[in-house]
Formats: sequence, C-alpha cells, structure tokens
Amino acid sequence: MFAPPVQRLVTELGKLPGIGQRTAQRLAFHILGTDPEDANALAAAIREVKEKIRPCEVCFNLADEARCRICQDERRDPAIICVVEGPGDIVPIERTHEFRGRYHVLGGALSPIDGVDPEDLKVAELYRRVSESHPPVREVVIATNPTTTGEATAHHIAAALHERTPDVAVTRLASGLPVGGDLEYADEVTLGRAFAGRREIA
Amino acid sequence: MFAPPVQRLVTELGKLPGIGQRTAQRLAFHILGTDPEDANALAAAIREVKEKIRPCEVCFNLADEARCRICQDERRDPAIICVVEGPGDIVPIERTHEFRGRYHVLGGALSPIDGVDPEDLKVAELYRRVSESHPPVREVVIATNPTTTGEATAHHIAAALHERTPDVAVTRLASGLPVGGDLEYADEVTLGRAFAGRREIA
Repeated sequence: MFAPPVQRLVTELGKLPGIGQRTAQRLAFHILGTDPEDANALAAAIREVKEKIRPCEVCFNLADEARCRICQDERRDPAIICVVEGPGDIVPIERTHEFRGRYHVLGGALSPIDGVDPEDLKVAELYRRVSESHPPVREVVIATNPTTTGEATAHHIAAALHERTPDVAVTRLASGLPVGGDLEYADEVTLGRAFAGRREIA
Repeated sequence: MFAPPVQRLVTELGKLPGIGQRTAQRLAFHILGTDPEDANALAAAIREVKEKIRPCEVCFNLADEARCRICQDERRDPAIICVVEGPGDIVPIERTHEFRGRYHVLGGALSPIDGVDPEDLKVAELYRRVSESHPPVREVVIATNPTTTGEATAHHIAAALHERTPDVAVTRLASGLPVGGDLEYADEVTLGRAFAGRREIA
C-alpha cells in the first residue's frame, strides 16, 4: 500500500526497541513531513555514531577518542571504580552528582541461561585494571541492576576481587524504598531489603 | 556526559513525535549496539524517502512516481473519491477493504486558530478534480477525523462542493459506537451520534 521507500523506512524504524508497526508508521510520516535538513541530520547522526563511537580503552564506556570523557577527566578519582552493566547506566548515576570516581562498563550481566558467561563481559579487564592501577584502587562499587542477573554478576565479581585483590573494598548500591515512594505499594522483596539495610538516624 | 556524536543522535531522535529524552537515549544506545549494516539501512531509508517520495500529482498521497499506486491502479473506481486529512489516514481505510475508489489528501484540517486556512490545504485542487473528472465523479466521501477541526473541514468542503458541483453526492463517514465497545463506556457525544445515525435492522 505504501511506495517501497516508505515501506522500507517503516520496516527499519520498526526494528528499533519498543517501536511497533503503528509507531513506525507514525514516525515515518513525521519524517516525510519534516524539512529535508532535519531528516538528513537524523540520518547523518546515525551514520556518525556508527563511524566514530567505540569503547573507551580503559573502561569500555562509549568514546569518540581512545579514552572516554570521564577517563580523560583528571578531576575524577581513579581510586574508586563504579562497575555498571551498560554505558546507559552511567547517565542516571552522573545525574545524582554523588559519584566522582571512574567507571567500568561490563557490557551486560552474567546469565548462563542466555549463554552470557564471564568471558563475554569485561570482567577480566576489570580484575587486571584493579590489580595494576597506580594509584591503587581503594574501592569498587558494584552498580549492576538489582535483578537476578545483576545480583549474580555482583556476587561473582565481588568473590573474584576478594580473592585477587583482598585489600580493595567491594561495595554494592543499597536496595530499599524509592524516595517519594509509598510503603503500601512497595513489593515485599524491596521492603525486606529496606529492613535489612536500615540505618540509625539519631 | 556523552561524546558529541552520541549527544547529536539523542537530540535528533528526541525531535521525533512521542520520543522523549529517555526514549531517545534508549534508541541511541540500541543503534550503538546494532550491526553497522542495520544502522546504515535505517539512515539510508531516511535519506531515501526524502529523496524519492513526493506528493501524487492527482491525489497528493505519497508517491515515488508522478502518480501514487492507488491512482495508477485501473481497478480503482475514479467516480468515487474519499477525502482524508493525511496520507496516514489511507492506511486504516485500505485495511477495511470496504473502499475501492480513489483518494484525495488535503494535507491537514482547517483550523483558523492555528492559521490553517483553505489555501493551505488541497481543497481548490479537490474542487477542480471533481468538476473536471472524466468519467464524472459520482460521490465524494469525506473521511476527515471526527474532531472539531475535521468536522469543520468536512462542512466547509461539503458546502463548496454542493455549490460548485451540485450533482455530486457528498457523504460523511458514520459516527457511532465502536464495534466491540461497551455502551457503559461510550461518551455522550458518540452515543448521541449513534442514536442520530440509527438504522432499521429488520
């Protein structure tokens, strides 16, 4: 029903995550209606990231040079490393302004069912980085997701680091009630974690 | 926080309708993770629609030749024209398989508040097409949206056609209860239309 170029665009847009057939059509019609410069800017931006972006040689974050912006920033403390599953996880952590160390991007979480083993993640690179760092690493904060696979990954890495570099503190982000949340709506696992992690306030 | 090429892609994706900052980031990370061929296919599809797609010279539907596929199809009845606001409205109508005539795409709906006047739509082209058609047009089905602007556009066009080509029947799609819907949840305007448009069934 569509001319083939329109159909091809709908098909390509429909391959994006969370974009169904209807949304792909709506986006395609929007692109058809925009200025050619806007549409070409989008096309150029897509090509550009595929050409220019590569993993940072230190932490595997996205970079357009050998090292990412965070690894290049001398003000960031190299003695504390926050381990995340993907580069997208760095965004919300940076937004908190709570963390001034460096990152290490694993490229996923361990999941034997899905065939994701330690060799598929940048864990060996993490162990090497921690053991060879000058100045020495003081703390590794494991910020994998609070999911089954994220927890399994955290425990695997914590055990390996304890064995290889016993002087380095290994911590995990706290689980608990979301700020602004409501006890009534908290699931029991989260509420259980909130109890287990309770802290004295006075 | 992102490398500039990544930020540019997030910005360009965020200009698409219904794509907020978070979704744009998610899509950008997805594109970063795909095969270069997939990403380039999307970029190429965007460029291609902007290069190849233009309005059909007869009905203003999207076309990759002078005339769209529907206007080229000899089996489609040229004596009945369905008037729609945009090319996207053709899709759901074609899906019904109820309509075997031709289309006329207005390019929007009349909305004086937003500065959309008859000169901004393809209404003059519609009047000319209807009055000069061989074989003559028997019926114009106005399928603008059942919204304030869509209704206003329908009434404006119906009045103009009645004046210029009084022999041509002008019809409007029925408003009423959606099939599979529930009376209890119908809004009063829709229910009122359903009453006004009631038909004998036996």
